[in-house]
Amino acid sequence: MLPGAGAGPHSLFVTRDWVHPAVKASWDSAQADSRGTTLPAKSKECLIGMAVGWFYLSVLALCSLGSMCILSTIYWIWYWQGGFAWDGTVLMFNWHPVLMVTGMVVFYSAASLVYRLPQSWVGPKLPWKFGHAAMHLLAFILTVLGLHAVFDFHSHRKIPNLYSLHSWLGITTVFLFACQWFLGFAVFLLPWASVQLRSLLKPFHVFFGASVLSLAIASVISGINEKLFSSLKNGTNSYSSLPSEAVFANCSGMLVVVFGLLVLYILLASSWKRPELGMQAERQALLHGGE
Amino acid sequence: MLPGAGAGPHSLFVTRDWVHPAVKASWDSAQADSRGTTLPAKSKECLIGMAVGWFYLSVLALCSLGSMCILSTIYWIWYWQGGFAWDGTVLMFNWHPVLMVTGMVVFYSAASLVYRLPQSWVGPKLPWKFGHAAMHLLAFILTVLGLHAVFDFHSHRKIPNLYSLHSWLGITTVFLFACQWFLGFAVFLLPWASVQLRSLLKPFHVFFGASVLSLAIASVISGINEKLFSSLKNGTNSYSSLPSEAVFANCSGMLVVVFGLLVLYILLASSWKRPELGMQAERQALLHGGE
Repeated sequence: MLPGAGAGPHSLFVTRDWVHPAVKASWDSAQADSRGTTLPAKSKECLIGMAVGWFYLSVLALCSLGSMCILSTIYWIWYWQGGFAWDGTVLMFNWHPVLMVTGMVVFYSAASLVYRLPQSWVGPKLPWKFGHAAMHLLAFILTVLGLHAVFDFHSHRKIPNLYSLHSWLGITTVFLFACQWFLGFAVFLLPWASVQLRSLLKPFHVFFGASVLSLAIASVISGINEKLFSSLKNGTNSYSSLPSEAVFANCSGMLVVVFGLLVLYILLASSWKRPELGMQAERQALLHGGE
Repeated sequence: MLPGAGAGPHSLFVTRDWVHPAVKASWDSAQADSRGTTLPAKSKECLIGMAVGWFYLSVLALCSLGSMCILSTIYWIWYWQGGFAWDGTVLMFNWHPVLMVTGMVVFYSAASLVYRLPQSWVGPKLPWKFGHAAMHLLAFILTVLGLHAVFDFHSHRKIPNLYSLHSWLGITTVFLFACQWFLGFAVFLLPWASVQLRSLLKPFHVFFGASVLSLAIASVISGINEKLFSSLKNGTNSYSSLPSEAVFANCSGMLVVVFGLLVLYILLASSWKRPELGMQAERQALLHGGE
């Protein structure tokens, strides 16, 4: 499942006992930083002790939140919106929110966090790159199915496509996701690109990866909001009277936001990243025709 | 106005001629990195030449986009929604989108980017901290006025408050903004906090700062979407037929997204940050009772 945490040189989030000797060495060398300070042995043990709890807690939180995002969307649609079908009716539209939350938010996040797994820091990086690309491809396929569900429903009902701001933002997000995947595949997976080009593009790849997730969350929020406004119109059951469906779906949306923020924190917080030593070793391996 | 760019030790975005000698020294020392590599003089000059263009371009892009976000929201409301008043009618509601885009997106972004101004890297940091806090306070006041506009309109029309997912996310964002401001004021501006506490909290302060902006953008998108669904209902002028108002307001929303992504890039991209040398000097000054 989702990796809960990684541990950079100064990280508090993972115990030494789990980590490969190469990472331990990187960690040890990082203890003496540019200012020449080192932690006393007792403080170090204390930090490592705290780390075990943080690591388990983060893995648990991410897995639970991700599952809850998917399950609560399914439950909302199944219980209040009539369930699912693949027949061009509104029941086909119902796949749209479920597939978008599953593909563009939860699976996309899992794929993005592959390199935060401590196991990914040592040994050859290529299998992890394949895993990263394959999981994103799976997320992309689910996303395309989610788009197909709404386009097919619109086509049966003769409703125009892509008129709302939600749809403009959503389709832009999917387009950026596709660009990001093909660029990542071409530059970071295929062997032709130089180390310099990869180093130059990596910060943009990471930033646009996080941006696509942020835009996906904004699209999900505006989509749930739009769906509730269009389906809760009756006086006794209007959105503004906050019936149980509205409360449940609002909570599902807020859950997606909390999940997304946690993923972005793990993705962007520097102390959870792959240690520099590993990156340098990988660069050297690449320079010598490795990987 | 908005700072367009800063320049970290490896930045390509600012010319040496603008930079204080202390920053130049940090830049020079950073040229010889941990791998002991240095750039040839010709490449360095070439990069500096490119930097001037990038810096001007970034300042220009941010100022233009920020102004366009505000002006296009004003124009949408003024031209299609009947303009503004402060009288409890729908004309009072009309202040809501304008004040939220101005306060929670554009002014908030300007306040967040204060430390990316090269001028802020040298000399005492305290005046810049005051500027950062004061600009955020101004953004917060505009935000509170924006909330007052919608609550007062709802109260006159007897419409319930805080039922939609847009409003749940929006109020959460404003609450996080308030917490972030008070925590920042207490820890980073008042003199009681230790350097260790500040160092510990700074990454969270930066991350939650960027998160609040991301959530504000998601709130703006869902808000514009909701407003267009509720106001464009007539058959000949429905949202789905994409009348000129819908196209204009959708474009305004996408402009806010582009502006937000550019701000987040400048805020989070490591090469645009205050150089470490300056931070160490500041820490030393603080340790010796300076600032």
